[in-house]
Amino acid sequence: MGVKRIYLAGPEVFLDDAVEMGRRKKDLCRAYGFVGLYPFDNEVVPASPSDRLDRLIFSANASMIAEADLAIVNLTPFRGPSADVGSVFELGMAFGQGKPVFGYSNVVEVYLDRVSASGPVTEDRKGVHRDGFGMSIENFGNADNLMIDGCLAAQGRFLVRNAVPVAARFRDLDGFETCLRAASEFYAAGTVSERFRA
Amino acid sequence: MGVKRIYLAGPEVFLDDAVEMGRRKKDLCRAYGFVGLYPFDNEVVPASPSDRLDRLIFSANASMIAEADLAIVNLTPFRGPSADVGSVFELGMAFGQGKPVFGYSNVVEVYLDRVSASGPVTEDRKGVHRDGFGMSIENFGNADNLMIDGCLAAQGRFLVRNAVPVAARFRDLDGFETCLRAASEFYAAGTVSERFRA
Repeated sequence: MGVKRIYLAGPEVFLDDAVEMGRRKKDLCRAYGFVGLYPFDNEVVPASPSDRLDRLIFSANASMIAEADLAIVNLTPFRGPSADVGSVFELGMAFGQGKPVFGYSNVVEVYLDRVSASGPVTEDRKGVHRDGFGMSIENFGNADNLMIDGCLAAQGRFLVRNAVPVAARFRDLDGFETCLRAASEFYAAGTVSERFRA
Repeated sequence: MGVKRIYLAGPEVFLDDAVEMGRRKKDLCRAYGFVGLYPFDNEVVPASPSDRLDRLIFSANASMIAEADLAIVNLTPFRGPSADVGSVFELGMAFGQGKPVFGYSNVVEVYLDRVSASGPVTEDRKGVHRDGFGMSIENFGNADNLMIDGCLAAQGRFLVRNAVPVAARFRDLDGFETCLRAASEFYAAGTVSERFRA
């Protein structure tokens, strides 16, 4: 089987202690028998002045996702009612490539409540909530857009939500560890069925 | 070759005239020789009371993406400085499956400017801009997170940006039509090289 490699997606790459956050996540991966792949693992150095740093980071991350066996994605709301779009892109990419995906959020409120808190919301005669642009707001009790919760549900999982104080919102790793445990159980179950294969 | 099918991703599914928007997009696809696949094409009817509508919509969309040859994604900022996360998930999924992806936004400002407009931003001694959580804000001149602009650039494309009045932000299809033209040229070029293949 070999040791499984986990792509570690999340907005913590924007923290001033992003490298230390990666170290903490990778240490936890190791404790659960995994290897963590973190965006900052790659030292991205432009080879020529015309090389764009952002394009090199994109390629490095996309290659890491392709190489990973699974992904754990930090889906904590970021700069608005939804998760970081960079992390969501990576979730979609990993899911599209058929890899097991796991997700957590350090905010527990449902999506509708967060949108309602961020601006004027009306309710039409059919009970549909609408934002300032008249656009409907999903009301399924999900943490975020139905594609996000849905891709986890399609794999028999759910988005892990923990109530974390605002000050620790992007550094708390309890939800991450819950995902690690779930991943560990997922592969342990897989091992059992592989054991009985011809 | 056959007619190429385009998955039509975007937050217009949340408009009260979402079905009409889909019709307009599909008509334009037809005018350029494509077939458009739009989320509302599927009549999603729960077979039993325990079926969750959101999960059925997820499955229908994910199947359509898998079946499509390419995707055109509306990446107009939605409920915050970034694109709709549902559309971004679908962009990532299509890209992860190796399909050509095209994207447009009806807002021209760069990401840093939009984040700056939405809350307090500071600049540290190294010139790095940071939000209220102290998290760095990308400053690459991109329309959105580097994974979004980057996946288009990796395929030799760019995110089409048009200045559209706020009232028309989620209904204007000029950027969509620019993507259709680009897709049309992409496949026309492909046909030429196929023609000279052994």
